[in-house]
Amino acid sequence: MSFAHRHLLGIEPLHPTEITTLLDLADSYAEQNRKPDKHGSALKGLTQINMFFENSTRTQASFEIAGKRLGADVMNMAMQASSIKKGETLIDTAMTLNAMHPDLLVVRHPQSGAVDLLAQKVNCAVLNAGDGRHEHPTQALLDALTIRRAKGRLHRLSIAICGDIAHSRVARSNIMLLGKMENRIRLIAPPTLMPSGIGDFGVEVFDNMEEGLKDVDVVMMLRLQKERMDGGFIPSEREYYHRYGLDAEKLSHAKPDAIVMHPGPMNRGVEIDGTLADDINRSVIQDQVEMGVAVRMAAMDLLARNRAESRA
Amino acid sequence: MSFAHRHLLGIEPLHPTEITTLLDLADSYAEQNRKPDKHGSALKGLTQINMFFENSTRTQASFEIAGKRLGADVMNMAMQASSIKKGETLIDTAMTLNAMHPDLLVVRHPQSGAVDLLAQKVNCAVLNAGDGRHEHPTQALLDALTIRRAKGRLHRLSIAICGDIAHSRVARSNIMLLGKMENRIRLIAPPTLMPSGIGDFGVEVFDNMEEGLKDVDVVMMLRLQKERMDGGFIPSEREYYHRYGLDAEKLSHAKPDAIVMHPGPMNRGVEIDGTLADDINRSVIQDQVEMGVAVRMAAMDLLARNRAESRA
Amino acid sequence: MSFAHRHLLGIEPLHPTEITTLLDLADSYAEQNRKPDKHGSALKGLTQINMFFENSTRTQASFEIAGKRLGADVMNMAMQASSIKKGETLIDTAMTLNAMHPDLLVVRHPQSGAVDLLAQKVNCAVLNAGDGRHEHPTQALLDALTIRRAKGRLHRLSIAICGDIAHSRVARSNIMLLGKMENRIRLIAPPTLMPSGIGDFGVEVFDNMEEGLKDVDVVMMLRLQKERMDGGFIPSEREYYHRYGLDAEKLSHAKPDAIVMHPGPMNRGVEIDGTLADDINRSVIQDQVEMGVAVRMAAMDLLARNRAESRA
Repeated sequence: MSFAHRHLLGIEPLHPTEITTLLDLADSYAEQNRKPDKHGSALKGLTQINMFFENSTRTQASFEIAGKRLGADVMNMAMQASSIKKGETLIDTAMTLNAMHPDLLVVRHPQSGAVDLLAQKVNCAVLNAGDGRHEHPTQALLDALTIRRAKGRLHRLSIAICGDIAHSRVARSNIMLLGKMENRIRLIAPPTLMPSGIGDFGVEVFDNMEEGLKDVDVVMMLRLQKERMDGGFIPSEREYYHRYGLDAEKLSHAKPDAIVMHPGPMNRGVEIDGTLADDINRSVIQDQVEMGVAVRMAAMDLLARNRAESRA
Repeated sequence: MSFAHRHLLGIEPLHPTEITTLLDLADSYAEQNRKPDKHGSALKGLTQINMFFENSTRTQASFEIAGKRLGADVMNMAMQASSIKKGETLIDTAMTLNAMHPDLLVVRHPQSGAVDLLAQKVNCAVLNAGDGRHEHPTQALLDALTIRRAKGRLHRLSIAICGDIAHSRVARSNIMLLGKMENRIRLIAPPTLMPSGIGDFGVEVFDNMEEGLKDVDVVMMLRLQKERMDGGFIPSEREYYHRYGLDAEKLSHAKPDAIVMHPGPMNRGVEIDGTLADDINRSVIQDQVEMGVAVRMAAMDLLARNRAESRA
Repeated sequence: MSFAHRHLLGIEPLHPTEITTLLDLADSYAEQNRKPDKHGSALKGLTQINMFFENSTRTQASFEIAGKRLGADVMNMAMQASSIKKGETLIDTAMTLNAMHPDLLVVRHPQSGAVDLLAQKVNCAVLNAGDGRHEHPTQALLDALTIRRAKGRLHRLSIAICGDIAHSRVARSNIMLLGKMENRIRLIAPPTLMPSGIGDFGVEVFDNMEEGLKDVDVVMMLRLQKERMDGGFIPSEREYYHRYGLDAEKLSHAKPDAIVMHPGPMNRGVEIDGTLADDINRSVIQDQVEMGVAVRMAAMDLLARNRAESRA
C-alpha cells in the first residue's frame, strides 16, 4: 500500500500514485456505504476528535459519519465555545487534546497554516479539514473521485474551475491535485477574484465564461466566499450571476457530456442556476457529497494503518 | 408485523392496528430499558441523523438514547448554526445529508409541513419530531403508551386535553390518535386558545375546567406555547393559573383514579401545581418521559425493518 | 474492592483507602490508554449523560473519551441552550433525564451544592464535574495520580497551592485529598484571594511566593477565576504575574526536583511563565490531562460496579 504520510495536511506533498491508492480504497468504501449494514472496523478502538474552529455542518458531519462507520470513538469539539474564550492558545488546546491520546485529529481553522503548525506539536495523525485560503485536501480528493467515476479516468481531461478563485482553498487544492494527474486546467473568474501570478502554475486564465468553458469535460463552480473577502470588491449577486453564474446557456459551450460540480453549500441563482444544479443528467453535486464520506473513510484508514505500522 | 409505512410523519395516516403494533413493541423496549444492559442491536450498522431546526433538549436526547441503545451510529446536527446561515435551503440541506446514506432522519422544524416536504426528497426513513403546529407523532404515541399502562386499556376512556390547544401540535396528534382508538375527548381552553371549528372533529369543547374535567379518566395538560403566539392575546400567568392551571381542587372533579399528564417542560405554578405534578399517585409525567424512549426505539425499529424488506 | 459510594460528589466523604483503590485502577487505565486499541467494555450497554450547565471543553471531552473508551453510550447535553430557557427547573431537568434510565450522570453546575441536590433525586450514579466553589473531585484525583506517578508516593510531601484560592473548587478538593493522605499543604495567595479562616484546616498560609515555595516538592498553580469574582478586588494581570506568577526565579526556592502543575486552561504570562509551563523536566501539566481520562474511567467503572452489585 503506497501512502507514506503521517498526516493529511494538503494535496501538495502527495505523489500521484498515493492519490490513486487513496481513491481506489475510497471507491470500495463508496460501495460499502450503499449497503444496508455500513459498519466496518478499520478504526475500531481508536479515538477521533473533530476540532472545528470554523463552523461547517456538512464537512464535520461527513468526517463524523466516516469515523463512526469505521468503528472509531468520535468526538466533536465546538472550539469557538469555551477554552478559546478563556484565553487558551491554539497550541495549548491541541496539546491538551493530544494528552488524551487521540489517534486522529480532524482540524478546520480560519488561518492558513494553523493546521500544519498544530500537526508538528501532536503525536496523532492530523487531517486538514480546511485552513484559511491554504488547503482543503479531502475536498479535492472527493472531487477527484467524483470525476473519475463520472468520466472513467482522472487524466487528460479539460477542467474549468469557475468563480471566487482568490479566496478558495478548494480551488487551490484542486489545482494541485488535477495538475499532478495531468489534466488541463482552466480558471475562470472576474479579475478581482483571480489571484495574480496564478498563470505561472500551468493553468489557463479567463475572465469570460463562454470562452473559458469551451469544450471542457468538467465544470467546477465555487462558492462566493463572502466571509473571507476583507473589504475590496464584492460584486452584486445579480451582476455576478449574469456574468459568472452557471446556467444552461453558458454550459452549452462545454462538451455535450460535461459534468457540473459545486462543493456546496450552493447559493442558487448566484453561482448556479437551481434547475441545472438539480439536473441529474449534468450535475454530480450529490455524488460529491456521497464521495466525501468515502474519501474521508479511506484517508483515516490509511493514516491509521501507517500509525499502527510505525508503532509496530 | 403490521406497520406499512416508510416514514413516521404523523398520526393521521396510521391505522389503529398499526398503533397497537407499535405500542406492543414499545412495551417490550420499556422493559429492556429497565435492565442493567440496555443495549440492543436492531439498528446495528445503521446511521441515524437528528436534524433539529428548533431546540429541544429532551426530545433530541430521547431520540439519541433510543438510537444508541439499538446500536445505531447517531449524529446530532445543530441546524441553526451553520449552513442555514450560509443561505442553503432546507431541501439542499436534506439532500446533502441524504447523499451521505443515512438510514433514519429525525427532523424537528418550526414550520408545519416542512418535514413532509423533506420526506419526499430523501431515500431514508424520516421521523417527524415536531413540525410547527402540525404533528408530533412520537409524543402522541408515548402518551398513548403511558395511558395504556396506567389504565390497562386505550379505548373507551374519557380524556381531557387542557390549555393552549390552538398552538399545540401535541394536542393535534393526540386528538387524532385517541380518536382513532375510540376514546371520548374533551378539550378545555380559554376561547382565545381554542381553534375555531374544532368541535367538528368529534370532540367536546369547554372553556371551564370544573365542567370539562367532570368524571374524566385522564387529564392531559399542555404547555403554554408562548414562542408560537404571534401577537394576539397572551394571558397573564397568574390569571391563567387561576382559571386553567391544574390543582387538587380542579382535579377533584375528575374520576378519583384519574391520571395527570404533561408533555414537559412544565411551567410549575402556571399550567400545573408543582405538588400535584410530583404526586406519584396521580402524576404519570415521569412515565411519559420513560415511555418516550421506548416508543422511539419501537418506531425506528419498525421503520428500519420496512426499509430492509423493501431493499430485499 | 473498597469503594463504597453510590456517587462521586466530592473528596470529603472518601476514605484514604478508597482514594488509593481509585488511583490504583486509574493507573492501569493510564497504561491501557497508551495502547493502540484503547477500547474496553467496563461500561458496555450503559448510558452516560454529560450535563454541563457551565461550558468546559476539556473536562467534558475528558469524561466523554473516558466513557466511550469503556463502551458506554455517551450523550452530551448542552444545558444552557434550551429547556433552561423554557423555565424548567434544575430538578425537573434531572428528573426528566432520570426517567430515561441513564446509569451515569456527569454534572457541572455554577452553583455550589447543586450537584448534591440533584444526586438526591435520581436513581443513577452522579459524578460531580465541578459545582460552584464547592468541589471538583476528579480534578483532585487526577492531580493526586499525577503527583504519585511523578514522586513515587502520595504522602509526606510538601505541596504549595498558589493563586486564587478563594474562588477555586480545585483548591478546595485538593486541600481535602492531600490532607487525607497526610501531606503538608501550603497555600500562597494575595490576601484578597485567600479565604478567611482557612488556616484552621491544618494548612500553612503565605502571601509571598518566595517564602511559601521554600523547599516544597510540588507547586500547584491555579487559574484566576475571573468569571467567579463578583466585584471586589481584581488584580491587574501584570501586577499579579509580578508577585504571584510562577517563573524560574520563584521556582528556584522550591526543591530542585519540584514538579509544576496547573489545572488548565492556562493564562500564560499571568499565572505562569510560558517557557516553564512547557519545560518537560519540571512541568507535569500534560500528564495531568492524561491522568484525567484515566481517573474518570476508574471513577465511572467503580460506580458502575457498585450499581451492578446493588441491583444483584
